[in-house]
Amino acid sequence: MQDPKRITAAVLVIGDEILSGRTQDTNLAAIARFLGPFGIDVAEARFVPDVQAEIVAAVNALRSRYDYVFTTGGIGPTHDDITADAIGAAFGRLVDHHPEALALLAARYAPGDFNERRKRMARVPEGASLVKNSVSAAPGFQIENVFVMAGVPKIMQAMLEDIAPRLARGVPVISSTLTVPLPEGAIAEDLAGIQRRYPEVTIGSYPFFSERSPGGEPAQRRIGTSLVVRGRDSAKVEAAMAEVRQLALNQGVAPDSLKMS
Amino acid sequence: MQDPKRITAAVLVIGDEILSGRTQDTNLAAIARFLGPFGIDVAEARFVPDVQAEIVAAVNALRSRYDYVFTTGGIGPTHDDITADAIGAAFGRLVDHHPEALALLAARYAPGDFNERRKRMARVPEGASLVKNSVSAAPGFQIENVFVMAGVPKIMQAMLEDIAPRLARGVPVISSTLTVPLPEGAIAEDLAGIQRRYPEVTIGSYPFFSERSPGGEPAQRRIGTSLVVRGRDSAKVEAAMAEVRQLALNQGVAPDSLKMS
Repeated sequence: MQDPKRITAAVLVIGDEILSGRTQDTNLAAIARFLGPFGIDVAEARFVPDVQAEIVAAVNALRSRYDYVFTTGGIGPTHDDITADAIGAAFGRLVDHHPEALALLAARYAPGDFNERRKRMARVPEGASLVKNSVSAAPGFQIENVFVMAGVPKIMQAMLEDIAPRLARGVPVISSTLTVPLPEGAIAEDLAGIQRRYPEVTIGSYPFFSERSPGGEPAQRRIGTSLVVRGRDSAKVEAAMAEVRQLALNQGVAPDSLKMS
Repeated sequence: MQDPKRITAAVLVIGDEILSGRTQDTNLAAIARFLGPFGIDVAEARFVPDVQAEIVAAVNALRSRYDYVFTTGGIGPTHDDITADAIGAAFGRLVDHHPEALALLAARYAPGDFNERRKRMARVPEGASLVKNSVSAAPGFQIENVFVMAGVPKIMQAMLEDIAPRLARGVPVISSTLTVPLPEGAIAEDLAGIQRRYPEVTIGSYPFFSERSPGGEPAQRRIGTSLVVRGRDSAKVEAAMAEVRQLALNQGVAPDSLKMS
């Protein structure tokens, strides 16, 4: 059953440098955290190379399925920046210089420095509106439900601020986390029971393993699990979390070794 | 034109915690860097939530298109670990306890502690072979061209080591990077010319912006661009990079301010 209060988004990360492992993407997580308070859930993400056919196929698959699509990367002045043309092709629209984008960029450069390649950064598909940012003059753009943003994280973040007023508001997901000094397997059965009794929330279980060697002593293994209850109804989240907490206490965990966040 | 020497892979990251922005994925980049020396290129990545239909659709789309698929996440003992069942459904195969996986896990736990939930970690689709790891007893598995791995980065990395001998070897991509103290727009035109003359390589241009405030002085803006030449023919990569370097020198950049890596 599709939740009528749920607004969905997809993230499309464009760029060879991410897929090759040269650059660690941080934009997906930043977009998801930005959209959370709007009640917009990132429901899927795709990462594609700098190849027009791949970008077109992905953006068309995503924009028909989710309320919003956010792309990052490929809007600079160099030959490998092909996102504007790819988005134009996906929508079947011509791509041309946007007068306001040209003006924004022209103001930034000395007269002789505003060359043809830099003017390329003003090219957007017909009918698109600009997405400005406080860091650089080069804008992104919005076309229907697709927001096209820069790949540089600081510029991408500034573009999200410009996009914010255009977004619908849903009911935000509330998330409550309890960190317990127990392995997952010890609590899995009871946890599944709580999930069954609270179908309105999702309960995630994330084990962690860390080694610490304080004061030169032999490394000590620290095992634990983060239990995360997520949902749009705060009463249900609290009720489910109270049961999760009791589950840990039933396992003999001391109350002061439970960490809530 | 598909390069006959090119072996392709897709990465499928499974988990609500990544899409919500709670957890920063690092597995995609780690897998890409691991596969590089094998001559295997990560050509696409998808991130999906803990929803069976989403996992099934993604793994079926990817396994038919790429030589290999690597999944991460969802193979633990809790109710939200649904990857084995989803992969079984994608292949139309029954999922059952694997005898060797059961034995591996049984050896790890005290007799009373090897409960039903922990036994779930031994469930794999019929015909799958195990992917072991040196960190935990719980195995991943391989079914045809799909490798199913843990989400915890340290365990995922250990599973890659186990998978390595099963992988085909292609011609690795050679990557050469020149960092120049120039904005992208100043060199974009000449760079496009080099790309046209060297169609066998791909030239990527990645601008960076950093602010530094050494010794309490006003922050100074540092702008530059990383120029990356990638290709399978080292002579072509070197020749193209020599032209990229000359391009920077022609812009008046001092040779000792060019950084090659």
